[in-house]
Amino acid sequence: MKTEKLKSLLDSMTLQEKIDQMLQLTGAFYQDADSVLTGPEEQLGITGEDVSMAGSILGTCGAEKLMKIQKNYMEKHPHHIPLLFMMDIIHGMKTIFPIPLGQAASFEPELAKRCAAAAAKEAAVAGLHVTFAPMVDLVRDARWGRVMESTGEDPWLNSLFAKAMVEGFQGDDLSRPYKVAACVKHFAAYGAVQAGREYHTVELSEHTLREYYLPAYQAGIDAGAAMVMTSFNTINGIPASTNRWLMRDVLREEMGFDGVLISDFSAILETIAHGNSKDCREAAVKAVQAGVDIDMMTNVYTANLRELSEEGMVEKARIDQSVMRILELKNKLGLFENPYKDADAKKEKEILLCEEHRALAREAAVKSFVLLENDGILPVNTEKSTAFIGPYTDSRQIKSSWAFTGDDKDCVSIEAAAREVFDRSRTEYRKGSPVLGTDSKGSEKRLTGFTGDEFGMLTREEEEEMRKEAVEAAKKAETVIMPLGEHYLQSGEAASRAQISIPEVQMELFRAVYEVNKNIIVILFCGRPLDIREITEKARAVLVVWRPGTEGGNAVVDVLTGKENPSGRLPMSFPYCVGQVPVHYNEFSTGRPNQKGVQERFRSKYLDIPNEPLYPFGYGLGYTRFSLSQIRLDKRKFKAGETIQASVNLKNVGTCKGTETVQFYIRDVAASVVRPVKELKGFEKVTLEPGEERTVRFSIEEPMLRFHTENHQFVSEAGEFLVFVGTDSRTENQAGFILC
Amino acid sequence: MKTEKLKSLLDSMTLQEKIDQMLQLTGAFYQDADSVLTGPEEQLGITGEDVSMAGSILGTCGAEKLMKIQKNYMEKHPHHIPLLFMMDIIHGMKTIFPIPLGQAASFEPELAKRCAAAAAKEAAVAGLHVTFAPMVDLVRDARWGRVMESTGEDPWLNSLFAKAMVEGFQGDDLSRPYKVAACVKHFAAYGAVQAGREYHTVELSEHTLREYYLPAYQAGIDAGAAMVMTSFNTINGIPASTNRWLMRDVLREEMGFDGVLISDFSAILETIAHGNSKDCREAAVKAVQAGVDIDMMTNVYTANLRELSEEGMVEKARIDQSVMRILELKNKLGLFENPYKDADAKKEKEILLCEEHRALAREAAVKSFVLLENDGILPVNTEKSTAFIGPYTDSRQIKSSWAFTGDDKDCVSIEAAAREVFDRSRTEYRKGSPVLGTDSKGSEKRLTGFTGDEFGMLTREEEEEMRKEAVEAAKKAETVIMPLGEHYLQSGEAASRAQISIPEVQMELFRAVYEVNKNIIVILFCGRPLDIREITEKARAVLVVWRPGTEGGNAVVDVLTGKENPSGRLPMSFPYCVGQVPVHYNEFSTGRPNQKGVQERFRSKYLDIPNEPLYPFGYGLGYTRFSLSQIRLDKRKFKAGETIQASVNLKNVGTCKGTETVQFYIRDVAASVVRPVKELKGFEKVTLEPGEERTVRFSIEEPMLRFHTENHQFVSEAGEFLVFVGTDSRTENQAGFILC
Repeated sequence: MKTEKLKSLLDSMTLQEKIDQMLQLTGAFYQDADSVLTGPEEQLGITGEDVSMAGSILGTCGAEKLMKIQKNYMEKHPHHIPLLFMMDIIHGMKTIFPIPLGQAASFEPELAKRCAAAAAKEAAVAGLHVTFAPMVDLVRDARWGRVMESTGEDPWLNSLFAKAMVEGFQGDDLSRPYKVAACVKHFAAYGAVQAGREYHTVELSEHTLREYYLPAYQAGIDAGAAMVMTSFNTINGIPASTNRWLMRDVLREEMGFDGVLISDFSAILETIAHGNSKDCREAAVKAVQAGVDIDMMTNVYTANLRELSEEGMVEKARIDQSVMRILELKNKLGLFENPYKDADAKKEKEILLCEEHRALAREAAVKSFVLLENDGILPVNTEKSTAFIGPYTDSRQIKSSWAFTGDDKDCVSIEAAAREVFDRSRTEYRKGSPVLGTDSKGSEKRLTGFTGDEFGMLTREEEEEMRKEAVEAAKKAETVIMPLGEHYLQSGEAASRAQISIPEVQMELFRAVYEVNKNIIVILFCGRPLDIREITEKARAVLVVWRPGTEGGNAVVDVLTGKENPSGRLPMSFPYCVGQVPVHYNEFSTGRPNQKGVQERFRSKYLDIPNEPLYPFGYGLGYTRFSLSQIRLDKRKFKAGETIQASVNLKNVGTCKGTETVQFYIRDVAASVVRPVKELKGFEKVTLEPGEERTVRFSIEEPMLRFHTENHQFVSEAGEFLVFVGTDSRTENQAGFILC
Repeated sequence: MKTEKLKSLLDSMTLQEKIDQMLQLTGAFYQDADSVLTGPEEQLGITGEDVSMAGSILGTCGAEKLMKIQKNYMEKHPHHIPLLFMMDIIHGMKTIFPIPLGQAASFEPELAKRCAAAAAKEAAVAGLHVTFAPMVDLVRDARWGRVMESTGEDPWLNSLFAKAMVEGFQGDDLSRPYKVAACVKHFAAYGAVQAGREYHTVELSEHTLREYYLPAYQAGIDAGAAMVMTSFNTINGIPASTNRWLMRDVLREEMGFDGVLISDFSAILETIAHGNSKDCREAAVKAVQAGVDIDMMTNVYTANLRELSEEGMVEKARIDQSVMRILELKNKLGLFENPYKDADAKKEKEILLCEEHRALAREAAVKSFVLLENDGILPVNTEKSTAFIGPYTDSRQIKSSWAFTGDDKDCVSIEAAAREVFDRSRTEYRKGSPVLGTDSKGSEKRLTGFTGDEFGMLTREEEEEMRKEAVEAAKKAETVIMPLGEHYLQSGEAASRAQISIPEVQMELFRAVYEVNKNIIVILFCGRPLDIREITEKARAVLVVWRPGTEGGNAVVDVLTGKENPSGRLPMSFPYCVGQVPVHYNEFSTGRPNQKGVQERFRSKYLDIPNEPLYPFGYGLGYTRFSLSQIRLDKRKFKAGETIQASVNLKNVGTCKGTETVQFYIRDVAASVVRPVKELKGFEKVTLEPGEERTVRFSIEEPMLRFHTENHQFVSEAGEFLVFVGTDSRTENQAGFILC
């Protein structure tokens, strides 16, 4: 539809019809649709009128179901405007890929793009038009459960993944087959919630917001994201959804976003609970004035905007602008021409969980795994007798809580995969413990809001029996592979943890096994960095597999056996312990860095733990070893418009083919606003055969030295810089250069 | 000296002489003076010229010594300008009062004022002119070691103590006997260091800085503080000492400070390590342009300012302004008339540790103690057989690390005090364990920068022997009193802890004693809130005594025996565990508060711990019980200029005389910028006999409803408010009112 025609359509609508476009409801309100709620649903006061006129629906899918809803809706709608169907397709629709934090560990944005495209294809044929992804929030605190949905602690890496995922979901043209609109979230800085507590306050200087938090949102917007979602938190004490400065001055004017801005689930209504709006009327005024186009799952807009507009509290033009954006999105998706878009029950059967997508899920899982420790025990010798011991041995609960379109039954467990490869006569499989235990404090049972059945908890006696049996198996085996980790409900939204530990019942199992067999390989399932000091000290190898998704078991076995060589690198530091968070590699030096030249007692440090995380950003091992030369620069001084070439030689000095991720970091030695001790500015994944050597190059250019000054200029400042190159963010391989 | 004459003096000085006034060195550079360093001293490049011309000296005291230095200095000085002698007199000079966090627990600013006045008297006769106190930094993170020097997490309570302490140190007229100048520190927001790590980055919105952090500094300035000290941290990415916006726009212009601004120890030089200044020249320019008058302990100013001034990089008028401020301070202290001021070796002997000061120290210690738990075991029945078991039983190391002018030998241990009161035939005293143990991880030995001898560590065998002996004593006793807690070097500057626990060796002792005797009273020595869940669960009573100072032992015994009734209230929340920090009572509600009306799963909370701290701000018990009526308001609506009277009846319903602290909190239900769930706005300490009842009144006025809006206006907004009254910050005793 031409823009002209869209405008005529808008003009022909009544005020209430317009406002109705600004309402989004869950599918639960619609016949034949079930739905997933991720927020409060009580006392919403949704009317029948709201239901029959709402402009979009979230949280339900399925071609047949959505086509029926669309048909019924359009028939009744005075202008036959189609509905938009939206859903959280976070890391896969039916084929579940690794969690975004795992995808980021691949350091391969192209892989995330392919996963997003595959997810979009499955979503599209299931009738969806929009996914509430990617989440691009910068994260520095492992207590926050939602770090699993992020791509980590680096603004630039986040930006690359934001761009890749938006492109993967959307392609070039939303109206083309198998594309869905992306929604960049959560604007802004949701990742910085105080003390890692879900939905808590955010405390950031404007400088930090602009310099470190906004870039990934900007990258998503620049990649053409059709939508942006407001965050639950406050910024400068004002909730994002009613923060006019944030949404209009920053998002619209400075960042140039002209798509649809949607609230998070009931976030406009929740500005009352925040203590920012005194009632629904005020919430409506503030949110609409801030430019929030769609009210997700409350009737704040539909119950109030007409009256407010008639009273002159809200300009009609403001409403028109929002509605036009919504209509434009529907038009971009081609819904006026084909309201069902790609919805197709037949294709749904063919495409969902197709072999191609499963293969991609397996590849992505392998690439997401991060090998933290290995004394040579990996890859395993399948000639030796082996015991798989741990609650994730036979578990198919290996997606995340944030993949509810997928089914556990479609997931491949480690045991199912291992049985195809490991000799049955020499291999034992034991659960050894439940995921969550009946520990004395009961703290792990505090997953409030659940029935408790999800956890399959046992009695203390049953736990002990299970452990005893596992220890017997461990005694007889030469190698013990222990798939351990968090419950899938221990990470994700509303899953903050003050103790970032492996559940105690599993640690008891680990210790009991360690008593009888020291040859332990830990396979760690987690949605966040955990405090794994004890595991790290005792196990001979530790492989982080995050929440690997549908093909998890196969991918784990591929890596265990050496069919695949692990190459993931941490996108988020593993803290030494929870008392160290927030912790991130790109911190400031402080005036008293913990290094020589500063009197030892009075350095910036803790008395009881090191400053460094247990494993830093960018860290990861593989099955071969690499040597990296000193860094070489082709010149030491340059000016804007020129380039310095940095290069290093990378050589595979091990015995098998492998992939290294060469990382380039820069430090601005002195600047008008303090710059981080290191900032990732480039990386290259290089695969080499044993003995093979390659030169890796990196171009230093003036734009990558820019930052936000005190007056919010984005410029570089002449002076001294350091460039670092290495295989993780701790590298000290450095050279200095000057920007004139 | 008249201002006219001061100006002539300034005019008569050479540029270098002026700049020399801006240098402060430690006494270590001066003959016959020893000194304490609290920062790096290496490679400072201090010249002989610097030493003989520096305008002030820090960190050394003693009348005879300082008089000699002053005499020598003035004789050599071309203009015979006297030196200023400054030192950290934080919670007492020779008579050591409780740490400031303990003083704050008294909820009695007048007490802190008397302590400050006594400390000033001792300092003055020992030759000092300035103390680097009070520290008024708001604190919310128990990991930071320096919380001991603060007065806690409430901006208003901090303001009251800031004012009281400044008035106590300074009196009305600095030239009068026994007064010293106060230095409000650390400007600004040093208390918000990231992850509680000393000297680390500070991340705050400008709103939060102004609304919650600046008020206490403002209160100190308004009380007439002669000096302010810059903080070590960055604000908006710019170190405080080179932050022109912070120091000129905010501190000087907005807050109206016209006294002497001094850097913290080598903080100007450290802006190089921060990555803000490329070299000393740039550090000098930035700091002097920011208006920092004195460079503490580096030669950044003296080695560079003359050249910079001659090059036109720094205006002479800027230097003149700083020097004039310094001369004015010397003049206010009367040093031009009497350069020795109160220094008097004879009086020093009489006044230091005099009976009056010791009595005040005892009173202050008693009032600082906070009784967290008591099932009736306290006050102790001295008729029963008693065992004192714990490393603080006979320890005189009960000051803080931040009281180096005091001597441990002058402190009264618990044992020394108890022996005067408890029947010797029925009382045993056992150390039971060292303060810090030889635990397997050795983490408690990481107090780097010390020789290790300070800790008097034992072998594992010696520890066990000690514990065994203590357990034997516990078996025989009817009551066990356990003085446990942190080492004095585990809190204070450069004493951040990622684990806020009682040292493990003491917990082993506690558990071993608990095995044989459940009648345990814990006396907790600490410089910060600790995670004491285990103690709290098992002990029959827990009394927090902070670091009580010189009269600690006597005060503890006064309270144990019921001679005194404890009345302290927590000025800082005791977190549930370290994974909960930062935590404070005056948080924001969030959009999804953890209460009814919000779907349980999706509330702002942790999966594994409660949101509430173990003990909240304002909490504390006594030996009697009080009942508090519902709150009554004389009207429900008011406008600016009017007053609402809130009142409650407080009744002593217990069996002994006691003191309750009735606390009034206000909540602004909806505001343009979100306001805290509660804010302390009034309190009254009330002492009642058993059965006695009193009405406590509180006036609500419009100015106390003001806050900083988005545009930095300080105004109130009409609407609904709640007033709460109770005996701690968790109270739900509330009433609503309206500001029209």
